[in-house]
Amino acid sequence: MSWNGFGRVFRFTTWGESHGPALGAVVDGCPPGLALAEGDIQPFLDARRPGQSKFTTQRQEPDAVRILSGTFEGRTTGTPISLMIENTDQRSKDYAQIAGAYRPGHADYAYDAKYGLRDHRGGGRSSARETAARVAAGAVARLVIPEVSIIAYVAEIGGDAIDPAAFDAEEIARNPFFCPDAGAARRWEGLVDQARKSGSSLGAVVECVATGVPAGWGAPIYAKLDADLAGAMMGINAVKGVEIGDGFGAARLTGEQNADPMRPGEGGGGPRFLANHAGGIAGGISTGQPVVCRVAFKPTSSILTPVESITRSGEATEVRTRGRHDPCVGIRGTPVVEAMMALVLADHKLLHRAQCG
Amino acid sequence: MSWNGFGRVFRFTTWGESHGPALGAVVDGCPPGLALAEGDIQPFLDARRPGQSKFTTQRQEPDAVRILSGTFEGRTTGTPISLMIENTDQRSKDYAQIAGAYRPGHADYAYDAKYGLRDHRGGGRSSARETAARVAAGAVARLVIPEVSIIAYVAEIGGDAIDPAAFDAEEIARNPFFCPDAGAARRWEGLVDQARKSGSSLGAVVECVATGVPAGWGAPIYAKLDADLAGAMMGINAVKGVEIGDGFGAARLTGEQNADPMRPGEGGGGPRFLANHAGGIAGGISTGQPVVCRVAFKPTSSILTPVESITRSGEATEVRTRGRHDPCVGIRGTPVVEAMMALVLADHKLLHRAQCG
Amino acid sequence: MSWNGFGRVFRFTTWGESHGPALGAVVDGCPPGLALAEGDIQPFLDARRPGQSKFTTQRQEPDAVRILSGTFEGRTTGTPISLMIENTDQRSKDYAQIAGAYRPGHADYAYDAKYGLRDHRGGGRSSARETAARVAAGAVARLVIPEVSIIAYVAEIGGDAIDPAAFDAEEIARNPFFCPDAGAARRWEGLVDQARKSGSSLGAVVECVATGVPAGWGAPIYAKLDADLAGAMMGINAVKGVEIGDGFGAARLTGEQNADPMRPGEGGGGPRFLANHAGGIAGGISTGQPVVCRVAFKPTSSILTPVESITRSGEATEVRTRGRHDPCVGIRGTPVVEAMMALVLADHKLLHRAQCG
Amino acid sequence: MSWNGFGRVFRFTTWGESHGPALGAVVDGCPPGLALAEGDIQPFLDARRPGQSKFTTQRQEPDAVRILSGTFEGRTTGTPISLMIENTDQRSKDYAQIAGAYRPGHADYAYDAKYGLRDHRGGGRSSARETAARVAAGAVARLVIPEVSIIAYVAEIGGDAIDPAAFDAEEIARNPFFCPDAGAARRWEGLVDQARKSGSSLGAVVECVATGVPAGWGAPIYAKLDADLAGAMMGINAVKGVEIGDGFGAARLTGEQNADPMRPGEGGGGPRFLANHAGGIAGGISTGQPVVCRVAFKPTSSILTPVESITRSGEATEVRTRGRHDPCVGIRGTPVVEAMMALVLADHKLLHRAQCG
Repeated sequence: MSWNGFGRVFRFTTWGESHGPALGAVVDGCPPGLALAEGDIQPFLDARRPGQSKFTTQRQEPDAVRILSGTFEGRTTGTPISLMIENTDQRSKDYAQIAGAYRPGHADYAYDAKYGLRDHRGGGRSSARETAARVAAGAVARLVIPEVSIIAYVAEIGGDAIDPAAFDAEEIARNPFFCPDAGAARRWEGLVDQARKSGSSLGAVVECVATGVPAGWGAPIYAKLDADLAGAMMGINAVKGVEIGDGFGAARLTGEQNADPMRPGEGGGGPRFLANHAGGIAGGISTGQPVVCRVAFKPTSSILTPVESITRSGEATEVRTRGRHDPCVGIRGTPVVEAMMALVLADHKLLHRAQCG
Repeated sequence: MSWNGFGRVFRFTTWGESHGPALGAVVDGCPPGLALAEGDIQPFLDARRPGQSKFTTQRQEPDAVRILSGTFEGRTTGTPISLMIENTDQRSKDYAQIAGAYRPGHADYAYDAKYGLRDHRGGGRSSARETAARVAAGAVARLVIPEVSIIAYVAEIGGDAIDPAAFDAEEIARNPFFCPDAGAARRWEGLVDQARKSGSSLGAVVECVATGVPAGWGAPIYAKLDADLAGAMMGINAVKGVEIGDGFGAARLTGEQNADPMRPGEGGGGPRFLANHAGGIAGGISTGQPVVCRVAFKPTSSILTPVESITRSGEATEVRTRGRHDPCVGIRGTPVVEAMMALVLADHKLLHRAQCG
Repeated sequence: MSWNGFGRVFRFTTWGESHGPALGAVVDGCPPGLALAEGDIQPFLDARRPGQSKFTTQRQEPDAVRILSGTFEGRTTGTPISLMIENTDQRSKDYAQIAGAYRPGHADYAYDAKYGLRDHRGGGRSSARETAARVAAGAVARLVIPEVSIIAYVAEIGGDAIDPAAFDAEEIARNPFFCPDAGAARRWEGLVDQARKSGSSLGAVVECVATGVPAGWGAPIYAKLDADLAGAMMGINAVKGVEIGDGFGAARLTGEQNADPMRPGEGGGGPRFLANHAGGIAGGISTGQPVVCRVAFKPTSSILTPVESITRSGEATEVRTRGRHDPCVGIRGTPVVEAMMALVLADHKLLHRAQCG
Repeated sequence: MSWNGFGRVFRFTTWGESHGPALGAVVDGCPPGLALAEGDIQPFLDARRPGQSKFTTQRQEPDAVRILSGTFEGRTTGTPISLMIENTDQRSKDYAQIAGAYRPGHADYAYDAKYGLRDHRGGGRSSARETAARVAAGAVARLVIPEVSIIAYVAEIGGDAIDPAAFDAEEIARNPFFCPDAGAARRWEGLVDQARKSGSSLGAVVECVATGVPAGWGAPIYAKLDADLAGAMMGINAVKGVEIGDGFGAARLTGEQNADPMRPGEGGGGPRFLANHAGGIAGGISTGQPVVCRVAFKPTSSILTPVESITRSGEATEVRTRGRHDPCVGIRGTPVVEAMMALVLADHKLLHRAQCG
């Protein structure tokens, strides 16, 4: 079905380009009666907002969200929630020079091949600016699943990983990298700063954990929770890989090593699992364990080093990106990963309720 | 939308349990006029069929497909194509003992938690037997995209990877592992045989490459080709990770290393790319390069070693699987990966045609 | 989305042609735990079955349904329910003569124009035989909405209407016309018999009333209950008009005449309505009153009188239908109308539950 | 799937309440390269705009549309087109008195029963003001089907019908009733004015004809062109009946009378039909004849005469509507019917192209 909407019953549709007047999301299927105001959404947009440290793009966008419909006297009414964010700091002229050439690694050539034309200003619709709309919609999704806590963090930048033993959830908000390991955060300062200064870029791995998901969400066979999460995450700009639980690591384990043994739970609840290689999902359905996924972000394609490319008319050229860009898009991708997790889970909660009451 | 259907305009719905009378797929939206007979589907089912070597489950299923609708005088009519495969070799009694207990790593507990009851015979709907229906549907999908060649192969078993330098596409059909490296295939014989004999199991990584995909398939933002592939692959039984192009490896590259430079193509065609880190997809749209994905299969959860578990009534028990199982499900997953690639591409070809003519 | 599926969360997909080996439906999204066996479906198929009186087609089909998946030990499991009905009495040679010509009023020309080929045997996919699959699926839908009673009956044949004052629900099953007015049933015997003998055909109006639908089902704006009913009914073969409540009659009333005043209900329940011009739906949402719709069936297009037509190659010809046909398709359309009502309501019950708990 | 979106591949989602800051539509799946500016949409909104004569509501809304995304340098880019219309003339206080009571005939009670709360100001989401968003989206749809001409007109008000012999398409734009019969238009002036003055209201029948639709659009079985039209029209506010071609009239014809004979067409084109009882659709697929539908609008439910009702707390009351309303909503429904016709046809054109190329 449609191209720019996501979800089955809790569904959102996004619109807008990097350099248009605004962008937004329409959230459909939200349960009625939930307390919702701009203040419930803004903090998540602020976390994703550019220009907050020297480690992210210097584009300055307040990214103030407006709720244009779907609430009455501070509560959701069950009708579509229209969220709009105006674009304010657009320097389209930065892009004039690449109007006629394709930036390697970007979607420029692909868009042109598909549509026969493209909005070259800041990547148009293919810009990661679209993810602001996801984050806004994700903030609404969180209200639908108050039983769930979602946390995402950067686990690796440029191949330098955190030390799991040093994991401190409190630390995530204390550094500009969403890094739960204070030591790694310090190392990354140098790493990312050097990439920024040299006009290079770095990749990253983001992990996301959702706790409190009850057993039973997700549905076989083509609405599996893990499949939907994989689609949701892979669709984020710059993402090239998704793992659930042990992911590729599981392919190197034996059946014995990969088992998640169960013991009787406390007080008649579900089982107590002795491990979580599965990442909280079996057969596409949540097991009650934390839902765990890992997401690989490629390095930002916009770099200062000239790369061979071609013009729209097919002639050889070189492209050096001059616009303002993130040296490591994975960092600002972290709130987007959280949002997509919330959006998938909210949809599956409602979908489960539809079938199973 | 629905749980057991996949695809937007080229869409299939599967049904059936491991130990029911039959299973099948209904393929909807297929273009009319394509030559189609059972003989176009059967070879793909045969490739996936169990019991062909000692390295796969000994369940013996002819997996003969019947076309019950949608063709007339050997051609597709544009109406739904109903494909049915009868189940013949079911030994449900093998499963009687686990009717009351949950097999760790399987979907037993999750299904019960979700639905309040489950068909325990062979995993019921959660059995990998459902993938036969995907393979049948995938064979129809291939007819929709004659311009595309799809090849999948096992790239790694139990952590032992093929040597890319020894890659020989001809070799894939010559060994029971869909392995393109004759040397690796020899090593895997011992590896898998040992796992089988000891009642253990191994994971695997399957790679899939589609060549001939023109630039322009896939559509932003929530119908991206890579997002749909990720969802399609992650939904295959036992899959825990998906990569497009360099995948997680891209997270460890710099922007310079990850660039796919372009040069003018021959004869006015699209660009000639000097690398394919992106795996043939940019911004969710195909670039004309080969579409490449990698899929991680966990080791089969059914093992002879007893694993701690609980009964339906919540008491502690141990489960040792006695049914006939694959020591490495990734092997027979290979034709399924191919099928899902074909199904996603066929859908996107038609979707692209819908919007862009 | 797909062409041959209907419904959002309670969703069914049908397949099969008039003269293929079988036809069927796959019901997806059915809640688990419902008691379901063939015996719950067969009576509805029997009601629709041809060859039961001289007033319907003489094609003799047992229309015995088989459940191929989705149940375990007599209960639904929440997985897809595959229903299959074999075709047994096909006389394809009856149709050989019209292989090369288009029957006026039928879909022959339209199918050929669309697909470039067609299965001419009995209309292929466009045959009303497909409605057997709807009736089977509808029988499952009824289990999902035990709080609702659905009754459909023929209110008019060939312009001869029932007398509302003579309405007797018991009468419906006593005559071959699903007619609630014994006097009208007697008149119709002569009317329909004469049409049959002269090779002519008659139209009909079918009314359907669903009582017990609670207030709150249906959802604005593009999933309105009345809009979904209209689409569901208009999609039945030979249907040309649909009304909700007073329908076209409402267009001739004043606002005062059309008002449905409300008084406080008994025991704190919903309001007591003093009229039901609205047919139980306001703003696309059920009000708790009976849901009422009326459906117009055109006369069967297959008649013995020759009608001008053209051949596939575009030459003038005449077509006289010789196959076995119903003199009034509206009669056997009655169980189909009931089925579609059940299918729409079941879907909306689950959809409402998804959003509103 | 979602509640507030319509269409399969050409899909739009609307949002907004009668008394919110704005309302809008997001149009997804639009082909790229079409010339589109606000000026292509505004005339259709102007035709629907309130306050243009004494025969419609006196609410004064400029209904100026803004395009917020999806175009670049005056052409569609293939990405979502966000259309926004600000609400300017809201007198919410008019509605304060009915905050606690349900207006009979309106969706007030149904919304409250469904959602547990409602935006009572002007009907909130259930207001016919939402149809402005449909009209805006419909204007985009028209650009997708330049081969088609769509015309809608009022054929009947308060039971007073036009004379088909006096039909003059030019007349439609000359009177405030979209009436093609100058004589009827004169009669209606008195009729509607009297209803307005007495605080009463009238129903209407709107006819819509689309010429130029090629044979082959629409798809069996659950994406039939007539079924989609029926759903689209029945979903318009105040609509209670839909007919395709002869509609209910066909139920009173014999097979001979209802036949649409065919003769060879000119120049090798499709057949020349001698009648169009079918309204241009057979088997759910267009035949190349004009697509004809008729839509019944009930009289406006808002009337000055007090009607028995209940309060939110269940007590008896009387409701007399004081807001500004149309004495005959069918009049302003005419551009909405046209828009829905365009939206359905545009979707089916693309859907046909997807499957059949």
